[in-house]
Amino acid sequence: MRKKLITGICTTALSCSLLVGGNGVTYASGTTTDASSNKAVKNVIIFVTDGMSLSDVNLTRWYQGGQALTMDKYFTGLVRTYSTDSITTDSAAGASAYATGHKIRSESVSILPDKITMPFVDAVKPGDANKPLPTIMDAARLAGKSTGSVFTCELTDATPATFLSHAYSRDNADSISEQMVYSGVDVLLGGGSGYLVPGKEEVNRKDGEDLTKVLKSNGYEYVTDKASLMKSTTNKIWGLFQPEALDADFDLNPKEQPSLAEMTKVAVDKLSQNEKGFVLMVEASQIDWYGHDNDPVGIISETLAFDKAFKEAIDFAKKDGNTAVISVSDHATGGLNMTNYDSAKDLVSVFKNAKRTSYGIEGIINEKNFKQVLAENYGLSNLTKEEADAVREGLKDNLSPVIGKIIGDKIGVSFSTDDHTSEEIGLFAYHPANFKPTDFAQSGVIQNTDVNKYIQNVTGLDLTSLEDTLFVSGQKFKDKGATVTIDKTDKTNPVILVKKAGQTLKLPIDKNIAILDGKSIKLNALTVMIEGKVWVSQDAVDLIE
Amino acid sequence: MRKKLITGICTTALSCSLLVGGNGVTYASGTTTDASSNKAVKNVIIFVTDGMSLSDVNLTRWYQGGQALTMDKYFTGLVRTYSTDSITTDSAAGASAYATGHKIRSESVSILPDKITMPFVDAVKPGDANKPLPTIMDAARLAGKSTGSVFTCELTDATPATFLSHAYSRDNADSISEQMVYSGVDVLLGGGSGYLVPGKEEVNRKDGEDLTKVLKSNGYEYVTDKASLMKSTTNKIWGLFQPEALDADFDLNPKEQPSLAEMTKVAVDKLSQNEKGFVLMVEASQIDWYGHDNDPVGIISETLAFDKAFKEAIDFAKKDGNTAVISVSDHATGGLNMTNYDSAKDLVSVFKNAKRTSYGIEGIINEKNFKQVLAENYGLSNLTKEEADAVREGLKDNLSPVIGKIIGDKIGVSFSTDDHTSEEIGLFAYHPANFKPTDFAQSGVIQNTDVNKYIQNVTGLDLTSLEDTLFVSGQKFKDKGATVTIDKTDKTNPVILVKKAGQTLKLPIDKNIAILDGKSIKLNALTVMIEGKVWVSQDAVDLIE
Repeated sequence: MRKKLITGICTTALSCSLLVGGNGVTYASGTTTDASSNKAVKNVIIFVTDGMSLSDVNLTRWYQGGQALTMDKYFTGLVRTYSTDSITTDSAAGASAYATGHKIRSESVSILPDKITMPFVDAVKPGDANKPLPTIMDAARLAGKSTGSVFTCELTDATPATFLSHAYSRDNADSISEQMVYSGVDVLLGGGSGYLVPGKEEVNRKDGEDLTKVLKSNGYEYVTDKASLMKSTTNKIWGLFQPEALDADFDLNPKEQPSLAEMTKVAVDKLSQNEKGFVLMVEASQIDWYGHDNDPVGIISETLAFDKAFKEAIDFAKKDGNTAVISVSDHATGGLNMTNYDSAKDLVSVFKNAKRTSYGIEGIINEKNFKQVLAENYGLSNLTKEEADAVREGLKDNLSPVIGKIIGDKIGVSFSTDDHTSEEIGLFAYHPANFKPTDFAQSGVIQNTDVNKYIQNVTGLDLTSLEDTLFVSGQKFKDKGATVTIDKTDKTNPVILVKKAGQTLKLPIDKNIAILDGKSIKLNALTVMIEGKVWVSQDAVDLIE
Repeated sequence: MRKKLITGICTTALSCSLLVGGNGVTYASGTTTDASSNKAVKNVIIFVTDGMSLSDVNLTRWYQGGQALTMDKYFTGLVRTYSTDSITTDSAAGASAYATGHKIRSESVSILPDKITMPFVDAVKPGDANKPLPTIMDAARLAGKSTGSVFTCELTDATPATFLSHAYSRDNADSISEQMVYSGVDVLLGGGSGYLVPGKEEVNRKDGEDLTKVLKSNGYEYVTDKASLMKSTTNKIWGLFQPEALDADFDLNPKEQPSLAEMTKVAVDKLSQNEKGFVLMVEASQIDWYGHDNDPVGIISETLAFDKAFKEAIDFAKKDGNTAVISVSDHATGGLNMTNYDSAKDLVSVFKNAKRTSYGIEGIINEKNFKQVLAENYGLSNLTKEEADAVREGLKDNLSPVIGKIIGDKIGVSFSTDDHTSEEIGLFAYHPANFKPTDFAQSGVIQNTDVNKYIQNVTGLDLTSLEDTLFVSGQKFKDKGATVTIDKTDKTNPVILVKKAGQTLKLPIDKNIAILDGKSIKLNALTVMIEGKVWVSQDAVDLIE
């Protein structure tokens, strides 16, 4: 029985020579051949600002009177986000590109595409459709780096999912959360505690497992309140501070829930204890939601929350000197347009009383008190009859876009869609030697996949080699003469059963565990089943003689 | 009588140390103090893509199946375009910032503001409100460089006007075109020949002058057809190929009218004959117009035309090795949003038959033939009843947005406004040593004024010193004991009359000429009257003892 060590790291950053491309231009090789090693960094912090358009950023800047945001200085380029089957992507395919370096099918989570109708996408080898893709977190973990994930949505939402799990559909919440628990991530902070425990709520697990116990038995601290997070001294920690998503930054009770900036700071403090470095993903999750709901105040709340978290990362990176910081969006949402011919002061005067997002007043507003609530929380003290009627209608269905329109009309802000948009999104980047993703890709407009390839390039992490070994077909067991069946005794927790000449190997799906003749062995990767097909780590295959 | 030579050039690029700022962040000095002189360039080509949003560029990319545009590689940052009195600027204030390095009041042309309600704008000294500002063209001309202006609108339109004239209102067409004729620009190519000659059309001059005669007497070649332009061998040339604007790129007859790329190439060929270098402004004028009229095909036509012209400039700059190329927009227009979940092929199939802009079919479409015209020019062969009704309505008023909506609906494109937007616009830049405006301003989001300061920095041209000498108050004559009156004998061509002890100095308004005791002298700058106040070049003042 041999266990091959997969390091997933190149000997130097420069030995990972990757052909960039796929942007519709013929690039030179993305990695230069000059020997300047000052491109290499130990740590990477990647922000994903879900749904954030550049117009959202502009509006947020005017909200504060035109003052520059922290991110402004670091703006570097534009990113093309289309998926393999759509000009406009969803979050799952959008974020998967950052996690894996591959464009994939919309709605799927870090697996190779089974549908390619878009240009500049590599063809998938026969049999590799839907194959799980190693993520930058896998590569970091296998190279001995620490990994972290911070977000304000529930953990199963598309963006956090893509960095730590694999699924045919982003909706497979039970499978995704279980994979995340077994993903080996060191620090995970956000919302969605409901997804870890059995129960009757929609968000609770249907497989009967209490994954918080698994976390604890695997050496994690598990916290659900801010105070516990703030006094934590461990470096392996999960903190989920709401059953579902966290509250928006404008709405949250700072005594109960940490802000995105606070979670980012805690994560960086803990992860940076590792001498080998770390990779941290931070998602500003809810800009997208307020974009869908056409709520400019919500967009501002979450864009400012991101900017503060980004500042934490930049402050650390500058002090550390060995850290690259990148911020990208999976896509933009809402098509916010601003056409305001007033002065900055006029605009600020409208905004100065906007204290909560539309979600933040959901629990308190009703048909009787809405005038008072809107006056207190937005300074909207003189609703017209039309506006009041619209609010009454909105209270029956969705109030967010109604409030958004009332405020938007006063500041020249409108929305084009309640859906995603096809526009390019902004790339913000810091690198100690000023080597940015746009330098790597040799273009100011780059592909979302280039961002992942850049991270590989500067860290020396190598996903290409892992693609051959981290998720291989279960067929490989059969090639060795073994039989492969699925034990569905526990219907919601099926186990792959591999048998050959006295050897019995059990591979619980969605876990990184092999049980060989009763003995538990930790694998390099998760065992995943996609559309009925099993994918296992090569080291699981190697366990069979 | 002494005549001071104003060179408007620093001894080295680095001696022009400018404090950048005004972006809401505290910058270090924009110019670095290191002695690397590889920042210096001899020539600058600045493109102004009037009204172009980044979503316009994205749509244009999908029009060609997703293939990268030439500009993509050079995308560098975002530019804040607000004027001194509005979050959303007009073209005049927007382009004036590039021409002069100052934010100014909307609707005015390269004069200091008399209204400041926006942040990060320098205060104006008492008495300096509405003072004309030297432009980068003035500085280049006085430094012995050649200057050029290329556009597809009429010459009096805001953007061309800002680089070569000064006005309280951009609507002062007679004054603006006269100033342009006397501006000393070496090469000027575009539309608007009607503005040079007397006549009864709206565009014709009301002052009775035939400025084409002035051009010829001042040594210019004056052409009005493409063939003459193409065989021209002079380096001082005006070419105006339509009485008003040129036709859009998709619509123009290539035998009669030059494309923007062709005009750019001719201008560069001629200007680059000057060993001291050149500054060329190229405006893609009509992206804005199609944005106002919500015509996606028009936007594509003009964005592609720009991209081809930009390629001409880049090709020259790379070969030349001593040229910086910059492209910016004065503002964005229309708020184009694209939310397309189809594949690139699906989109191209809708577009492949779009052969003309909505302006291009204006002369041929009518209530009888519209179905045939739309089928032939857009592949729109199956109009619904609603669409046909909308076209009939549009024919009475403005057809462009109607066609725009029919096509837009098929490709997921909509518009948010028929006006300008507040969004930041894209900065595209090439520099032989890769020193870009964002490097100069030390931020990825810069002010429009930073673009001008960057040009000063890399060329060594110095507008700050010219601001003290190029346009001084007519009061200075009185300070010398002279009397100043205005001779309105020719009502439409008033002349400033300065008299002192036997000296009589005549300064025709909007011209760069002084007539001292009957003898004509060329001045360093135009004599300009703004809101009743006279501004003259210091060398005119120096003529009075």
